[in-house]
Amino acid sequence: MNFNTINGIQIAGNIYAHIQNEIQSLHIQPSLVAVLVWNNPASLRYIEQKKKWAETVWIQFTLKHFEIDISQKELEAEIHKINTHPDIHGCIVQLPLPNHIDSLSIISTLSPKKDVDGFHPENQWKTVIGDDSGMIPCTPAGIMHIFADQNISLSGKKVAILWRSNIVGKPLTNLLINAGATVVSCNSQTPDITLYTKDADIIVLATGNPGLLRADMISKEAIIIDVWFSVINGKICGDADFENISKNGNLITPVPGGVWPLTVAFLMKNTLEASKKLAEEK
Amino acid sequence: MNFNTINGIQIAGNIYAHIQNEIQSLHIQPSLVAVLVWNNPASLRYIEQKKKWAETVWIQFTLKHFEIDISQKELEAEIHKINTHPDIHGCIVQLPLPNHIDSLSIISTLSPKKDVDGFHPENQWKTVIGDDSGMIPCTPAGIMHIFADQNISLSGKKVAILWRSNIVGKPLTNLLINAGATVVSCNSQTPDITLYTKDADIIVLATGNPGLLRADMISKEAIIIDVWFSVINGKICGDADFENISKNGNLITPVPGGVWPLTVAFLMKNTLEASKKLAEEK
Repeated sequence: MNFNTINGIQIAGNIYAHIQNEIQSLHIQPSLVAVLVWNNPASLRYIEQKKKWAETVWIQFTLKHFEIDISQKELEAEIHKINTHPDIHGCIVQLPLPNHIDSLSIISTLSPKKDVDGFHPENQWKTVIGDDSGMIPCTPAGIMHIFADQNISLSGKKVAILWRSNIVGKPLTNLLINAGATVVSCNSQTPDITLYTKDADIIVLATGNPGLLRADMISKEAIIIDVWFSVINGKICGDADFENISKNGNLITPVPGGVWPLTVAFLMKNTLEASKKLAEEK
Repeated sequence: MNFNTINGIQIAGNIYAHIQNEIQSLHIQPSLVAVLVWNNPASLRYIEQKKKWAETVWIQFTLKHFEIDISQKELEAEIHKINTHPDIHGCIVQLPLPNHIDSLSIISTLSPKKDVDGFHPENQWKTVIGDDSGMIPCTPAGIMHIFADQNISLSGKKVAILWRSNIVGKPLTNLLINAGATVVSCNSQTPDITLYTKDADIIVLATGNPGLLRADMISKEAIIIDVWFSVINGKICGDADFENISKNGNLITPVPGGVWPLTVAFLMKNTLEASKKLAEEK
């Protein structure tokens, strides 16, 4: 990695050190449950990584793995059990769920206090309006942390965001608006994205189109947050032409090793915070 | 009004005609309760207008007026009574509430099914993600209706929005993103709004700064939705220089008589829809 690469693994490492310290001083071991409904290989890989990091920082990790034909009602009943279980502090429902399951309804069933993904409507809406009593979704929280870590101020900055996913792109858009940035939300129907990327101080991308953002589409000072990953010829890459953009001196997150480590770190941080709050209520 | 003015009163009139027709064919009279906590003159005026229109379309309107020193707990208990009352279909909590009341908590206490303002986190989040099973906040719903009524397509359009209020500006921003528009959210820290207004197909404003948008800041084709109103020397006006912009041939909503009539009309429409859904559940 060269000097203008944002090292997500290192930034996440600092967060893990803080989490570990704090957990050692607690009287309880935080516990995280992952609900998985099918054997989607990508989901299993994500779960593996979350388990590894949970156990590294002494968070108890339990996988609840259900058959693909579990009904909506049965799954909701399982979520209710998790909600009322006194020794479970955090729960993630690994997405996507099978088509016959209404995901929003399942996520809404989970107690907002245990929703460490920050996907419950109450937590999402609090994120949108800047009410910090809720749980912020992990990827947007991680990206905001990158800005803080790198001393990048957001007020008055021009941000182009090429990402309008409901559960991640939209809360991030609103966090940036709350921070005083002028935010342009582009999509596949935007006639000419260069109009916005050329002029942006910060560009956030998560489209799944490798090579979408080229060095000639941005200013020399632009900061690039490349979130999504694709696999091309067995190699993992993001949406930005990392090599040429990096060569030009732009600050950029690599893929892999950029945003994703922070997503997982903030999942653990949310679990720690949830366990502290629930312990206080007891 | 000249030919390029968007006549909100007329558009709202068509909605009321539909509502009235539908209510006449129902077996119940929809009922709307307004919760008011103090004697703020602006709030009283808003309530008066809502009452007038409710009664015009045969919606029963009841004002529940509480003393300014009502406690959070007492107010929540009143909301619970409304939630469980079988003959109340819709409820609005007139904002602002006094400082000692946590507004978000009160709105979250209200049943999402009776939340005809669309301010409950569940309804707001459904609006953000484009899930149409919830209640859309009335002003954003009214503005989206203006676009439909005037045959203004949004996909691929450039929209500049000068409005980041939590309960109204943000849901509208997300509705526009969902409709495929490229949306720029500007704020008071945006270094140069002309950069965005000059290039926009549509500009939505609600800042409370009369004269903020001048004719020389926009293209000849731009459509202006002017939402907020100020009172200058006893005269009500919006943020846009209506006279000069209108003279240039731009399509524009007037203030008054533009967006606000649609806000009230959509409150009645939400009340009708709520009463139909609750009647079905009985």
